[in-house]
This record gives sequence, C-alpha cells and structure tokens, in this order.
Amino acid sequence: MDYTLFFEDAVRALKDEKRYRVFADLERVAGRFPRALWRRGDETQEIVVWCSNDYLGMGQHPKVISAMTETAQRMGAGAGGTRNISGTNHPLVQLENELADLHQKEAALIFTSGYVSNEAAISTIAKLLPDCLILSDQLNHASMIHGVRSSGVSKQVWRHNDLAHLEDLLKAAGRERAKLIVFESVYSMDGDVAPIERIADLADKYNAYTYIDEVHAVGMYGARGAGICERDGVMDRIDVIEGTLAKGFGVMGGYITGTSALVDAVRSYAPGFIFTTALPPGLCAAATASIRHLKESTAEREAHQRQSARTKAVLLAAGLPVMPSETHIVPLLVGNPDLCKKASDILLEKHGIYIQPINYPTVPRGTERLRITPTPYHDDSLVEHLANALVDVWETLELPLNTPQPIEDDGVVIRRQIFRAAGG
Amino acid sequence: MDYTLFFEDAVRALKDEKRYRVFADLERVAGRFPRALWRRGDETQEIVVWCSNDYLGMGQHPKVISAMTETAQRMGAGAGGTRNISGTNHPLVQLENELADLHQKEAALIFTSGYVSNEAAISTIAKLLPDCLILSDQLNHASMIHGVRSSGVSKQVWRHNDLAHLEDLLKAAGRERAKLIVFESVYSMDGDVAPIERIADLADKYNAYTYIDEVHAVGMYGARGAGICERDGVMDRIDVIEGTLAKGFGVMGGYITGTSALVDAVRSYAPGFIFTTALPPGLCAAATASIRHLKESTAEREAHQRQSARTKAVLLAAGLPVMPSETHIVPLLVGNPDLCKKASDILLEKHGIYIQPINYPTVPRGTERLRITPTPYHDDSLVEHLANALVDVWETLELPLNTPQPIEDDGVVIRRQIFRAAGG
Repeated sequence: MDYTLFFEDAVRALKDEKRYRVFADLERVAGRFPRALWRRGDETQEIVVWCSNDYLGMGQHPKVISAMTETAQRMGAGAGGTRNISGTNHPLVQLENELADLHQKEAALIFTSGYVSNEAAISTIAKLLPDCLILSDQLNHASMIHGVRSSGVSKQVWRHNDLAHLEDLLKAAGRERAKLIVFESVYSMDGDVAPIERIADLADKYNAYTYIDEVHAVGMYGARGAGICERDGVMDRIDVIEGTLAKGFGVMGGYITGTSALVDAVRSYAPGFIFTTALPPGLCAAATASIRHLKESTAEREAHQRQSARTKAVLLAAGLPVMPSETHIVPLLVGNPDLCKKASDILLEKHGIYIQPINYPTVPRGTERLRITPTPYHDDSLVEHLANALVDVWETLELPLNTPQPIEDDGVVIRRQIFRAAGG
Repeated sequence: MDYTLFFEDAVRALKDEKRYRVFADLERVAGRFPRALWRRGDETQEIVVWCSNDYLGMGQHPKVISAMTETAQRMGAGAGGTRNISGTNHPLVQLENELADLHQKEAALIFTSGYVSNEAAISTIAKLLPDCLILSDQLNHASMIHGVRSSGVSKQVWRHNDLAHLEDLLKAAGRERAKLIVFESVYSMDGDVAPIERIADLADKYNAYTYIDEVHAVGMYGARGAGICERDGVMDRIDVIEGTLAKGFGVMGGYITGTSALVDAVRSYAPGFIFTTALPPGLCAAATASIRHLKESTAEREAHQRQSARTKAVLLAAGLPVMPSETHIVPLLVGNPDLCKKASDILLEKHGIYIQPINYPTVPRGTERLRITPTPYHDDSLVEHLANALVDVWETLELPLNTPQPIEDDGVVIRRQIFRAAGG
C-alpha cells in the first residue's frame, strides 16, 4: 500500500468540497493594527485585517509588549521545563493569582492554549466524578467536544441554548447522579450569548456542576473585563470559568478558575497539563500586564462595542446579510463554501481587506460565512471602506442583497446607495 | 452529592501515596543559568537548577532573547488568531521552512507544544489511514499514548526497544494492512536510545509507516542538531519526525516534519491544530534563531556531552546509584516516592540544589528517581558540589551507596571519599 496516496486523497476531498484552507502569510506591525503586511512570494502588500481574534488590539499595546520584552531579557525566552520539573516561573505564579482575582475564584491554572485547557480540564473533571454524565451544548467548540470524548464518560447534547431541553435531561438524570454542564458564554461563530443565570438556576435545582467557556468574552465584557458572567453578575454561580490569554488579552495560553480543590485536582491529574512545558515567563508577564490594564481601563471595551455596533449598522444599511448577533461578532452569511472563498479572495486581492472564509467543520454546511470582528482600532472610515468593498463583492458574485436599511447616523456614505441612486 | 469532596479525595489519594506534586516557584536569571531564584513566600534564595529541560541553555542565549524581543516590539505580543483565521505570521512560516530544512523533509507544521503535536498528529494520521494498526513502544510518552487513544484505531504495544516483538506484531498484521509504528529516539526518563535503523528496516520489510519523537534529541545530537536520526544517518528512513522547540532549542512549541502530502493532511484535519491560536511571532523568531545557531555551532553539543559524561563519572565515583544511560540524561535511582521527595527537599533546602523527584505515573512505581540533566553551563565545580550534596543526602536518608568507583580524572574530590578516608 502507498501511504502517501491516502494523505493526498484526504486533501483532494477538501479541495473538491472547496474547503481546502490556504493560510495567508501575514506580518503584523505593532502600532499600526489592524493594518498588516501580506506576503505572496517576494511581494508584500499592506492590508487591513478584519477577522482578528486580537479583539481589543491588546497584542500591540505598549504595556503588553514591554512586559514581554523586559521579562524575556531578564529571565530568558523559555520556561525550561514542565510545571513540575523546573518550569514553574514566578511570572506564571503571578498570572495565576491575577486570573483567580479577575474571576473572583480561589485559584487558577494556566494551560498552553484555550484548546488544551478545555480538553484537559473537561476530561479530567468528568473522570474524577463517579459515573459522571456530561451535558454539552450542541454548539460547543471543538476543544470542548474533544474534552468530552477524551473523558470517556456518558454525554448528552442539549439543543443550543434550549433551557427546556437541558432541564429534561437534568431531570431524567436525577439529583443524585454527578452531572457536568459544559457550555460557552459567547458562541463565536454566531455571536449569541448563553442564558447563564437560568442555566445556573437549573444546575442548583438538579445539583449539577457547571463549566463555562468565556474565551470570546474575557477582557471584553464586565466592569473589569472578566466576561459575560461578570457583566450578568453571576460569576459566583458558575463552578469553573475557562478563558484564554490569546484573544481579548492579546497574547497566548488558556486557563481555568475555580475552587482550590478543583484546580488542585486538575493540576494533579490532567496529562495535557502535567506533561507539557510551562508558558515562558515573557508571555506570562505580557498577559498579566494586559489583564491588569483591562481591569482598570474601560476605554477599549467601550470603543470595541461602539465600532462593532457601527459596523453592523453600516453593513445592514448597505443591504448586506448580517446574521443576528448579540455581541461584537459580525457574521455575514454566504451559504456556500466556494462563493465564501471567492468573496474572501476578491476582498483581499482587490480591496486589501482580509476576512477569512469560515466553512465546515467550523460552522454547519450551508451556513458558510464571512466572520467580521471589528476592534477599537477599526475607525469609521475603515468601516465605510469595508461596506463599500463588500457591496462590490456581493454584486460581482451576484449574491443577494437586501433592501438597504436606514442608518441613524447619516455621516456614512455607502457606495451601493450611491450606485443605486445613480443607476436607478 | 458534594462535588468538592471528590476533588479533595482525589488529591488526598496522591498525598497518601506521597506523590503529590509541589511546584517550586522559580525565577531564572538570563546570563546566570543554571542559577535561579527560588521564592518561598517573601523569601528568595539562589539555587542551582539540575533538572532543566533547557538542555543547552539556549533559553538564555543572547541571539534567542534578542530575536524574541526585537520581533515582539515590531509585530506585537500575540499571533491574533488561529493559523487559518489571521494567525499565520511570517516568522512562523520561516520557522516551518527552517524545520523542514533541519530534518531534510519536504514540510513542517508547528503546534503549540510537543504534547499537542504528538496527540494531534498521531491521532490524525491513524484516522486517515484505512483500518490502521498502531504499533506503540511500551515506554512512549503520555502525549503519544493520548494520540493513540484519541485515534480510536486498534493498537498493539511492543515491549520497549524489543525488535523481535515488534517484528512478530508486524508479521501478524501482514504487509497489506496500514501500520503506524510510533516510538521515541531518546527515552527521557532512562536516557536510552531506540535502534532506529533496525526499526526502519522492519518498517521497510513489512511496509509500515514510521513516526519518531525526537523531543529529547533535537538540538543536541547530529552534525546540525537534527537529533539521533541525523547522528545515525537515518533521517530519510523515518516518515515523520516530531520535535519540540521547548527543550534543546530553549523556547516553546512542538512540530512535525514529513512529506508535503502528510503535513498538508495533518494541517487540514487535526482539530488540535486547526482550532488553536498560532504561536506568537516573537516565539517563532526566537526558535528560528536558536535552530540556526545550533545548525552552525557544535560547541554547545560538545560541552553538553562532556559535562553529562563527567557528571555520570563523578557520581559513580562517589558510589551513587546512577542508572545506565546512553545519553545526556543522568537518572539516579531512589526506588521509593517518599524518600525521593525527601531527597529532593534536602537537596533544595540544605544544598541549594533543585532536582525534582520523578514519581509515578511519569516512571513505573518502584523506580522513583532523581533525574539529573547537566547542561554546558554546569561546570566542574558545580558537578563536584552536586556529588558532595548527593552523598550527604544518601547518608542522611540511609540510602544504599555502592563501593566508590575510580574516576580517571583525579582532580575531583568527593566528600564521601574524604569522609571514608578520615573515618577509617
């Protein structure tokens, strides 16, 4: 048998389905975010990134960069070992304290990524509880599904954000059985939010343990940036809050927070935590600087919400198919992987706008989309430029446009409105 | 039911078995490696780290640190997204090219850690091959076992480095069935080495695909630091070479190298790769600087081997139970988790020497040990200090000492030899 053929076939299947991923080679420029350089062979072109998960631009914040560089200069580039074998560095200990404080929990534990934190923590918690039943929201992230599978325990999937369905499953399992409810606060592809308080009510009623993924919310919601649980005043009602250092905080790494007993158990039993090199001191110091800044400063959160709302309004005004979203995420429906890829290509090549196509398996087939993430640094003129470019793409690809909707602020001129006025 | 009780019980079980892990809070000092500051509450004490996996001290190399800080200043602290969604940064592309060149393979793929690279790559490769059988060395690392389990395919474990057993299993499976042989080059707890060439011969004979973990060898063996496969002249005979950026190279992250078809398939199908934020540009640039330096410079490798050999010789001369090791790793048998922890505590508190106890599940019960990793920066006087301290610990704990063995170089004075001579 020829092994290479199988690998080639697997890749060809993706190409046939038009969902083969090509990675854009980018060079971000600190101080110029969201602008970046796009490299193709020897050519370099300046583009505007509209799909970054560095939601607040904290990856380029001077405090964050200088914490990283100053610490790396003082302590070196790496941690030098696993947490247990010489890798626990003082900035990492400080970061864990900072995160426990942020979420008002007894303790925190850092992982190398949000993916690993979900996989390792969910599987370990479920294994430690006798005869545990996991109740998992239907739209949970791949990392959470991986954790559920790794645990090997029984699981039931509740329909997305459907409280009645969740209650049915809880009731059927009974109060005495160990039950772990796993869900997200912000679902990142649709931008909708879980009814956290009512899930916590159900957990109390049926005595379930609760685990929430706040990776698309930390830094961005709540008075100190602790996420949707903080905004909704329910941080103390969720047992485990998981988050990331890579999105709102702009660096890298993932974490959980909870009681000391919970954190100590995961720390002691999770292979994905135990057998991996610790986060470098420079990264930890950078993350701590970012968290501390966002605990005090609300300017980034306010500008983020303002520019997200403005982007939605301007795109809707242009008749573009903005999907309903309660948060900073602006999904634009295309509904076909090939057209989604083409739209992305035209945006990049013709308009210098980088928005990656989002295809299956990240979203269900038929809901392929452009997922736009405005940041505080996407100013009004960039929003206008985006809207004009998108209308051009929609017209080029003959994608359906809605009747333009009125926008309250009339300072924005959308090319399509001009075009229609002129043409019709 | 009280969830907290289960977590407390789980931790108590580890304490009862004397294998509860306490992490030392360390602050490494660039330029002073292997010295570090050990923090306990408000107190800080200078200690010597003797168990670091920063095997060559590259984490503090000026080229590595300046690549990290210069790049972070220019491009920011984080990558800002997954590889597919705006996270592919130019230093990451350069690092993948560098790694493909290092191992003389067509392509390379970076993961957030060595753990993730093994888990994600092994599980994905095995899933993509029809009816695949994994043949896994008995002493493979936790991350490889995790990958084997995640794949869900059938597996058979061959006795550690036992070629006859491996051949029996290959023969039984037959030439036609897809077979993936997964093994390590250097087994990090014993320091022994796999018979790579003969495994490759068997793979050819029975048409199996081969996957080797070189994490404890890259940077340290071979003319350009590509590992044991390079040293043994068999890089082209192994299909997938996996490595880490966190140990010999001193930074963080993991990778695989192989054919373009293989790398493209893993890139396109592995959830642990797809759904995670890319490595920050500063880390990538630091790793590239480290790899490039070690491709040219052999001074670190020579000093590393010299000081490892010296450490073994000096400890054997003192009658300490050095376990057989073919590599830079110096395991010292204790054989009991409680005494192993006590030995480590006395070394740290009395002698300022930090060597973490290695207990189950990292090693089999009854083989608990101190695992010593000399680096080029552990000079002769530090080796002598270590030997004297260990003899003191062995005597304090009434652990068995062998008859002191002669050492060729008589410049070393071991306290025990003095003590025995004086005492009669």
